[in-house]
Amino acid sequence: MTMKSAPIYFDNAATTPMDERVLEEMLPYFKNNFGNPSSVHSHGRNARETLEKARKKIASLLNTSPGEIIFTSGGTEADNTAICGAIETYGIKHIITSPIEHHAVLHVVEHEVKEKNIRLSLLECDAEGNLNMDQLALLLEKEPNSLVSLMHGNNEIGNLNDIERIAALCKQHGSYFHSDTVQTMGHYPIDLKALPIHSLSGSAHKFHGPKGVGFIYINKTKKINPLMLGGGQERNNRGGTENIAGIIAMAKALELAFDDQASHAEEILQLKTYLKSQIEKNIPGVTFNGLSGNLDKSLYTVLNVSFPPSENNQGMLLFHLDLEGISASGGSACSSGARLGSHVLNALEADPSRENVRFSLSRFNTKAEIDHVVKILAGLYQA
Amino acid sequence: MTMKSAPIYFDNAATTPMDERVLEEMLPYFKNNFGNPSSVHSHGRNARETLEKARKKIASLLNTSPGEIIFTSGGTEADNTAICGAIETYGIKHIITSPIEHHAVLHVVEHEVKEKNIRLSLLECDAEGNLNMDQLALLLEKEPNSLVSLMHGNNEIGNLNDIERIAALCKQHGSYFHSDTVQTMGHYPIDLKALPIHSLSGSAHKFHGPKGVGFIYINKTKKINPLMLGGGQERNNRGGTENIAGIIAMAKALELAFDDQASHAEEILQLKTYLKSQIEKNIPGVTFNGLSGNLDKSLYTVLNVSFPPSENNQGMLLFHLDLEGISASGGSACSSGARLGSHVLNALEADPSRENVRFSLSRFNTKAEIDHVVKILAGLYQA
Ligand SMILES: Cc1ncc(COP(=O)(O)O)c(C=O)c1O
Ligand SMILES: Cc1ncc(COP(=O)(O)O)c(C=O)c1O
Repeated sequence: MTMKSAPIYFDNAATTPMDERVLEEMLPYFKNNFGNPSSVHSHGRNARETLEKARKKIASLLNTSPGEIIFTSGGTEADNTAICGAIETYGIKHIITSPIEHHAVLHVVEHEVKEKNIRLSLLECDAEGNLNMDQLALLLEKEPNSLVSLMHGNNEIGNLNDIERIAALCKQHGSYFHSDTVQTMGHYPIDLKALPIHSLSGSAHKFHGPKGVGFIYINKTKKINPLMLGGGQERNNRGGTENIAGIIAMAKALELAFDDQASHAEEILQLKTYLKSQIEKNIPGVTFNGLSGNLDKSLYTVLNVSFPPSENNQGMLLFHLDLEGISASGGSACSSGARLGSHVLNALEADPSRENVRFSLSRFNTKAEIDHVVKILAGLYQA
Repeated sequence: MTMKSAPIYFDNAATTPMDERVLEEMLPYFKNNFGNPSSVHSHGRNARETLEKARKKIASLLNTSPGEIIFTSGGTEADNTAICGAIETYGIKHIITSPIEHHAVLHVVEHEVKEKNIRLSLLECDAEGNLNMDQLALLLEKEPNSLVSLMHGNNEIGNLNDIERIAALCKQHGSYFHSDTVQTMGHYPIDLKALPIHSLSGSAHKFHGPKGVGFIYINKTKKINPLMLGGGQERNNRGGTENIAGIIAMAKALELAFDDQASHAEEILQLKTYLKSQIEKNIPGVTFNGLSGNLDKSLYTVLNVSFPPSENNQGMLLFHLDLEGISASGGSACSSGARLGSHVLNALEADPSRENVRFSLSRFNTKAEIDHVVKILAGLYQA
């Protein structure tokens, strides 16, 4: 008789478990401090105070001013807001993005292109997912009034784009630069006084906060029209009664993330390094997708493994892992149900005969979990 | 020495305190059952199951099918989705709404009218806020391919529109009918098999659920394009990782609301009736705004009182109440900070020399609270 071991979670790029301390922080805002921050009476003022405290905390963690932080229902809304808002506000007729962006960017870009007679340039990327930066420079030279939307860290292959360089190029040409920073927010330090970016997006559930709450930073020199129109909340930047409990939780989660950012990074990078070397040692023929095998140029949270063709595991690797109680992913969570394959791996022209698994780590993972997963993998790839 | 009494909350149309049982229901979904419902592994499947259970529960409470319920970040997003989606999907060139709609409808309508060369007809309303239904019929006859957006219960003056009649008119002409049902959801029974409506909106925080979560019902014969584009969640109807904890809480809150709907309604109506009679008895010259004084034709939760001009209280009545720990409102929460006055009372051409206070009740209010508030009011209006 074998004992079923506890489930192991290696899908932190899809979503993360909430930190206990975040839950504690948010609880009082459901029942006792429940006012609507737009109300002028004491219940409303308490809620407003809570809301503005959270905004101030997030702004200070990113070294920017509270007026530049707008709360949203998540990363998708933040990306949609940036793209639709920039187009409407600045009469954008040309968008530059890349084929390896998240669907929260690509699908809204495609929609706007189709509906609004806007031209689209997709940057070339090589087999490792490196973007063609010369092409970006040429495109911006030709058409400075472009909207550039390029992510910071890729959620599938872990590639880190050089957003400082992209921001500098955009600044030089006066172009609007939005970056989807959902995967790096809380995981990398960011200084918005130093980085000339116009907007970026964050989502609490990627850094041990709750799902359904996020924010967009909008630089005060480049205001954009709101996506959601209603009661004038968020200084007329986003209609809708604010998710106070979620917002206070997000602020706490970001604070916890930044409090120990360097040591979390160090710790998780060690786990990733160990996972990589153990997989290489135990499974002949593995490679790594994108730059995820390059420890300097990729997210320390993501390792996207390309397993050699195998009759036993063809199309079944994730299923076999799942049977063993190991949760990992074939791509982004959003497309993983769709069985269309990963648009990111397709853009890299990955070999379709190989099996791809994204392991994504958090500070709640352990070396013992890695040992266990590698043991299972080794079994599956035994000669 | 006077003892400061506990704060009294009479602003339930702005937001409601969460029910203890709702909080209990949602807690497990923050930490333990934290998966992303789009993931295919066990963590994801558990989350998906939870999500679909909540959808099924809400659908069954409204007597409709789960595929017609789409989760959103609240009532504002639901209204924005309906209006933008109907316009885009059905090539709408004419919108019919009324001047007393919530800003979540009016502001998006105004935006679309301005940006998309759409014509707007605002229905006339009389001094009590009754809509001109003959005008509606004429407009629909002239232009059947119109979008009609008319709310069920008005959040400021409590007027209940006859949505059965409006739905029948729209059906007769094949027009798209959206109703903002944010104020009535959970407070009035609704049977979507019997009511020929195309979309309606709900927001959990108006029926003792959390803020930042809501839903839109979209009739399966009148699908509309999504507002938020991303990872194909909600069967491609709304991108963005789902707020599972919020959604499960909303389903529970709606279930609790409907479980005892008739007795809650009876209980709150008695409170409203008592409040009305006590105010009339103690303060000479009061009247009631809209239909809110008409117990049959208005929300049992809302009494909007028009106080006679008074030198002591001019512009200060809410402030005086607040000093006494009583939270009530001058209009909708969203506009109450703006000091622009209420667009609803302006549409009714209310006498600007009078003081207007909306008292809005819930099943957590008591007769003792009403006695207290009437005592304070009587003091303020003493000769
Ligand atoms: C009638 C009405 N519609 C829409 C809304 C907006 O809903 P939410 O607060 O969830 O954005 C509200 C409340 O604020 C409302 O009272
Ligand atoms: C890179 C990236 N952008 C955007 C999103 C969307 O954020 P949310 O899940 O909050 O809608 C995600 C995650 O799903 C992501 O990984």
